[in-house]
Amino acid sequence: MLPEQTPASPATALDEDELAALDAHWRAANYLAAGQIYLLANPLLREPLRPEHIKPRLLGHWGTSPGLNLVHTHLNRVIKARELDAVCVWGPGHGGPAVLAGSWLDGSYTQTYPDVTRDEAGMARLFRQFSFPGGVPSHVAPETPGSIHEGGELGYSLSHAYGAALDNPGLVAACVIGDGEAETGPLAASWHSNKFLDPVHDGAVLPILHLNGYKIANPTVLARIPEDELDQLLRGYGHDPLHVTGSDPAQVHRAMAAAMDQALDRIAAIQHAARTGSTTERPRWPMIVLRTPKGWTGPHEVDGVPVEGTWRAHQVPLDQVRTNPGHLAALEAWLRSYRPEELFDDDGRPEPQVLACVPRGTRRLGANPHANGGLLARQLPLPAPEKYAVEVDKHGATLHEPTRVLGGMLEQVMADTAERRDFRLVGPDETASNRLQAVYGATGKAWQAQTLPVDENLARDGRVMEILSEHTCQGWLEGYLLTGRHGLFSCYEAFVHIVDSMVNQHIKWLRTTRRLSWRAPIPSLNYLLTSHVWRQDHNGFSHQDPGFVDHVLNKSPEAVRVYFPPDTNTLLATAEHVLRTRDYVNVVVAGKQPCFDWLPLDEARVHCARGAGIWDWAGTEDGERDPDVVLACAGDVPTMEVLAAAQLLRRHLPHLAVRVVNVVDIARLMPAEEHPHGMPDREYDALFTQDRPVIFAYHGYPWLIHRLTYRRTGHAHTHVRGYKEIGTTTTPFDMVLRNDLDRYRLVMDVIDRVPGLAVRAAHVRQQMADIRTRHDSWVREHGTDLPEVADWTWTG
Amino acid sequence: MLPEQTPASPATALDEDELAALDAHWRAANYLAAGQIYLLANPLLREPLRPEHIKPRLLGHWGTSPGLNLVHTHLNRVIKARELDAVCVWGPGHGGPAVLAGSWLDGSYTQTYPDVTRDEAGMARLFRQFSFPGGVPSHVAPETPGSIHEGGELGYSLSHAYGAALDNPGLVAACVIGDGEAETGPLAASWHSNKFLDPVHDGAVLPILHLNGYKIANPTVLARIPEDELDQLLRGYGHDPLHVTGSDPAQVHRAMAAAMDQALDRIAAIQHAARTGSTTERPRWPMIVLRTPKGWTGPHEVDGVPVEGTWRAHQVPLDQVRTNPGHLAALEAWLRSYRPEELFDDDGRPEPQVLACVPRGTRRLGANPHANGGLLARQLPLPAPEKYAVEVDKHGATLHEPTRVLGGMLEQVMADTAERRDFRLVGPDETASNRLQAVYGATGKAWQAQTLPVDENLARDGRVMEILSEHTCQGWLEGYLLTGRHGLFSCYEAFVHIVDSMVNQHIKWLRTTRRLSWRAPIPSLNYLLTSHVWRQDHNGFSHQDPGFVDHVLNKSPEAVRVYFPPDTNTLLATAEHVLRTRDYVNVVVAGKQPCFDWLPLDEARVHCARGAGIWDWAGTEDGERDPDVVLACAGDVPTMEVLAAAQLLRRHLPHLAVRVVNVVDIARLMPAEEHPHGMPDREYDALFTQDRPVIFAYHGYPWLIHRLTYRRTGHAHTHVRGYKEIGTTTTPFDMVLRNDLDRYRLVMDVIDRVPGLAVRAAHVRQQMADIRTRHDSWVREHGTDLPEVADWTWTG
Repeated sequence: MLPEQTPASPATALDEDELAALDAHWRAANYLAAGQIYLLANPLLREPLRPEHIKPRLLGHWGTSPGLNLVHTHLNRVIKARELDAVCVWGPGHGGPAVLAGSWLDGSYTQTYPDVTRDEAGMARLFRQFSFPGGVPSHVAPETPGSIHEGGELGYSLSHAYGAALDNPGLVAACVIGDGEAETGPLAASWHSNKFLDPVHDGAVLPILHLNGYKIANPTVLARIPEDELDQLLRGYGHDPLHVTGSDPAQVHRAMAAAMDQALDRIAAIQHAARTGSTTERPRWPMIVLRTPKGWTGPHEVDGVPVEGTWRAHQVPLDQVRTNPGHLAALEAWLRSYRPEELFDDDGRPEPQVLACVPRGTRRLGANPHANGGLLARQLPLPAPEKYAVEVDKHGATLHEPTRVLGGMLEQVMADTAERRDFRLVGPDETASNRLQAVYGATGKAWQAQTLPVDENLARDGRVMEILSEHTCQGWLEGYLLTGRHGLFSCYEAFVHIVDSMVNQHIKWLRTTRRLSWRAPIPSLNYLLTSHVWRQDHNGFSHQDPGFVDHVLNKSPEAVRVYFPPDTNTLLATAEHVLRTRDYVNVVVAGKQPCFDWLPLDEARVHCARGAGIWDWAGTEDGERDPDVVLACAGDVPTMEVLAAAQLLRRHLPHLAVRVVNVVDIARLMPAEEHPHGMPDREYDALFTQDRPVIFAYHGYPWLIHRLTYRRTGHAHTHVRGYKEIGTTTTPFDMVLRNDLDRYRLVMDVIDRVPGLAVRAAHVRQQMADIRTRHDSWVREHGTDLPEVADWTWTG
Repeated sequence: MLPEQTPASPATALDEDELAALDAHWRAANYLAAGQIYLLANPLLREPLRPEHIKPRLLGHWGTSPGLNLVHTHLNRVIKARELDAVCVWGPGHGGPAVLAGSWLDGSYTQTYPDVTRDEAGMARLFRQFSFPGGVPSHVAPETPGSIHEGGELGYSLSHAYGAALDNPGLVAACVIGDGEAETGPLAASWHSNKFLDPVHDGAVLPILHLNGYKIANPTVLARIPEDELDQLLRGYGHDPLHVTGSDPAQVHRAMAAAMDQALDRIAAIQHAARTGSTTERPRWPMIVLRTPKGWTGPHEVDGVPVEGTWRAHQVPLDQVRTNPGHLAALEAWLRSYRPEELFDDDGRPEPQVLACVPRGTRRLGANPHANGGLLARQLPLPAPEKYAVEVDKHGATLHEPTRVLGGMLEQVMADTAERRDFRLVGPDETASNRLQAVYGATGKAWQAQTLPVDENLARDGRVMEILSEHTCQGWLEGYLLTGRHGLFSCYEAFVHIVDSMVNQHIKWLRTTRRLSWRAPIPSLNYLLTSHVWRQDHNGFSHQDPGFVDHVLNKSPEAVRVYFPPDTNTLLATAEHVLRTRDYVNVVVAGKQPCFDWLPLDEARVHCARGAGIWDWAGTEDGERDPDVVLACAGDVPTMEVLAAAQLLRRHLPHLAVRVVNVVDIARLMPAEEHPHGMPDREYDALFTQDRPVIFAYHGYPWLIHRLTYRRTGHAHTHVRGYKEIGTTTTPFDMVLRNDLDRYRLVMDVIDRVPGLAVRAAHVRQQMADIRTRHDSWVREHGTDLPEVADWTWTG
């Protein structure tokens, strides 16, 4: 199974001193990794190991750690030798002990956490805190210096690395991909990112596929296909793979050093050729396939069964150390096999030989500022929305496509960042479908693969990124933001669920980094969800799902913001706001279809700042007393239906005092104690009243509004209409009608719920019911909406 | 760019008559596809085309349709020639018109929908209903005869095809993969499914990668890498690709027929070799790369810009047909180019030549029973849970690991289906981690790649399927169920979010098929979510997320069931139930860690059947009057905390009348009008009272309980504790304490909310607060739970 080694090129052959130094660093890191998993005390084994030195709960992942340490050691070497600016994304992030060991060794850990000193006391702290209550997590996590990647949920390492490399021409983003992670869909898709990486304006990604052969309990696919088949696969992905295989440390050190040198030489040559204009061909980027045993250098056998080199080394290879003297002795022998006495001095400080390969200052992997991207992030230049705002002399007199107008503003952002290159727009082949194509006036779509004469807007240096993989889009953007740049993800509303779990992890990241003073805030992750549930009438049921909002509102409120701008100017004002923020996930839901212009920009801005407000021009209350009914709305289509309902009420029931409330920032509905944007009760009551019926037309699943408002005094009087999971290919108005969100149904709801109205307005109610029936027949006969609906305009 | 053709092998060269017949079928299908997009009347163009013959809203996807039709034509040919039992998964399912055309031509459409006759009147109906209100969706959908795959959300075609082929040794599952879909993560991962397909016991999958070069608005990656690079990629995936390229219909027909024959010959040879035992090597399965122009045979140019062969052909190539006479003329010319007068007789029936390639009866793609799997599904043999149930003489006196015990029952299911082979267990490398490994007593893990001596439980014919891709697991299982077999997906609770969007689509499928009388109910999709939020203390925050339940409860209630069995026997009873059901998505959340045995099996069964009930043995009420407080719980850990709280209350406040209610079936909480399992109010009130404080300890996000119960009379008195998104690597009890779900906090909640208790029980409250503080110090010092928590037992 083991293929031939990549021979070390003579130019880069290690001499014996170098080899000894690299091995010392690697042994030290392995010792520290094992120590973190096991030791509560006696960190340098100055006395024989006793059960009380062992942690009561053994947690952590040993299996991947020696391989990660090997990569760490060798990255150190080339960073130092070549003065590289490099980060590393550790895909097998379960191996937290390894990455923490590397950071402790290079001094960045102590720099970040001064109480964990680089000496015996600090080593004891390092060991104790690992996976210990009140300590640090078992995975590579936000708490880990030098990390932009939580290694818990697998699949996103490579797209994160690409995101980091984009627009960072001097950066090398190394990326260790475990053979387990390589089986995931998001990882499998992200190999093709190399068709989007510009060798001129972007940095390099160096994928290191680490085949240790096993997952939790199984062999891995890529480790069990023939070497030549794997090689074909990687070449098919567009890479030029270098294979490093072995279990003898000295031999692997030599091969790894040679492969690293070859890869970096090749990267340098590719970049040089592209940057001097001598070629525009898509490069075949190098990558390394590193094949070493799982749990390498750990116990070879335990209780008579093989452990090293098998899945049994995945977590804790010796698991009864406190109670089984044989295990205790095996652990001691294992730890002593690294010869800690050679690696650390009397004070527990790493010996000079151990640190010989370690780079200095911000070149250390644990201290590179790209991995704490907020340090590098600049304020995004934003044009004044005034320039793009639509004229609104009269509420609702004109129509615009909100996202198309936003596209003009984004074009300017693209133009203003043409030199700085710190803004990207990502989307799964939907930028034009979502009507943002004005951006192509300022930049193209990144594309390094073949082009044909019919192609439009493709560009090697484009900053719009389109691939039909929501996962890859999300991963790119996360990597880009985490390294301190700005961006926007435009996505069909229904299909953003594809990245539910990715946004979960990003919000968890933000929740944690917000508590870490050394982590500078990063630009927010902004979603523009469009082509939404109410206007996917042509694609039908599969494209209709407004539930992403429910999903993100389950996560930490401090990091989540959700906006439903009801028209074009409100979308501009919302965009202006969210693009300035840091450390949030902002979800903006807005339509691309022609939408009435309700607010001039100045009113839109005030409305956005308030997040919710009374539209007095739309209602009929006199201001003297509470209204008879509140019509509330959130979302562009519900807003139109509510205004149409208000107009019907004004005509048919002129004496009814109707208030119209529009909600842009949905978290305003929440109690102030539950969300930073939550309204105090008195403010809520002033908007919605305590006791009048509230008919709430909401863009998504209606129960979300109940979930947000159940503690409000007026909740019992609140009746919500929204999407009830009734969808198909049909007309726009048929969609709202089928879900009982239509204007006529809302009027009926008002009549049903305002005390005393049922009898008095029975004829109006019947009229409404009749129109609904008429619409139903019309649409089935003509295939279009009833003219009085299709041609409706707001007349106040 | 165009590579050499795969030469037609002489043996399979088409004669001129065959060629003409295939081309006639293809032209007819293309005509019918275009007709569906455009025509409201004049289906056979018996009169000149006029604007009023055109639909008012032009919806549909032309671009992919001619390629799908080509595949349909050629599958017909080989099915008929070889008497194949075949289904086809249409990945580019946006091309609904194509698949509907094929079904109408083979008569299966009329068989399914008798009013859409195979004549002129039926053709008019076929055209009119497409993407028309009250008609049929624009995509391949549940309504489409012969389909097991909704083509709206891309990525799942290939895993569905593999699911269909598993344990169907006589079946060929063809699968068209669009080059857009090929960019998605789920699709990219699923290529490796061929390492899990047993040529002896499973059928064959024939992937047909259709490169038409463009997505909505962009070229595709796989169409723009060099042919040899693509070839390497596909060989790296383990395939032996056959390339068919062209734009001349006759030449492509010849090449496609030859490629189909070669592929099927190769499949036959692989299966023969494996089934006669002459080889056990992993086969290199054939596949076809079909490269034809997007929108092939449609308008070449429109308004002076190229359309055929570009992304502009994606949807509706001529979009102003009603208003632009040039477009109208171009449409007429386009439609007439198929020479409908040669294809359909005077009654609008397809001419014999058109139908020459069409197979008969259930061999037609639109009528194969595998694509209506409920027709084939048998009742799953289930052993009596009695055999596996744990003895419970006394509530809470013993501990068992629920999933481990379930594993024993599943082993028997595996054993009892050893011959029938209609049950599979899927999971992302977590079967053993989730403690279901008893199943390996009856079957192995499917694995066709290399094996080594250290491997355990791998088997070519294994029916446990493990790959580190939740997407692939889900896709396999969906395909397996949709073709009428049974299965269970065991998954870490947090990471099931990875398939949020897939389960969305499956529930949408079920919601729709439940309304189609011709679709027989299929076995339910069963999730076992374990390694859950409360016991991921070792992996930490990234592994802690109970929100999947919230996600599925947004979908159609008729198809969604969610269970929280609180102990081992209840899990067995739940499993027995869900494995018998049809047409549901059943979500079962259960722990793998030792859990108190609360109920003997007979009580567990009754409790499951009721879905929620009073545990009178756990409470202190006298039955004469309403209790002072209700302690409610759902989930294994909350149940333990509630019982511990009940025990504390019994000891410290013996006169307090406490009721304990356990909820297994969470939908019971919903109003009866909103979910088929919802309780009527009187039943709810009888359990929870109308006015007593309810302290509800819930497994997941607490607001879910509010969302489900906000209409209940007692809702205002309901206080919910659950997971508040506070997670890390820590001890089990520290997790519940940090989230205020712990027994001491629950007792404090009782004291705070039972009127009059605050003063009387202030000392008890203080005691509780003190223990919490003490735990906090203890856990940070010792790394373990306070002994009185760790050693707690139920004493009643």
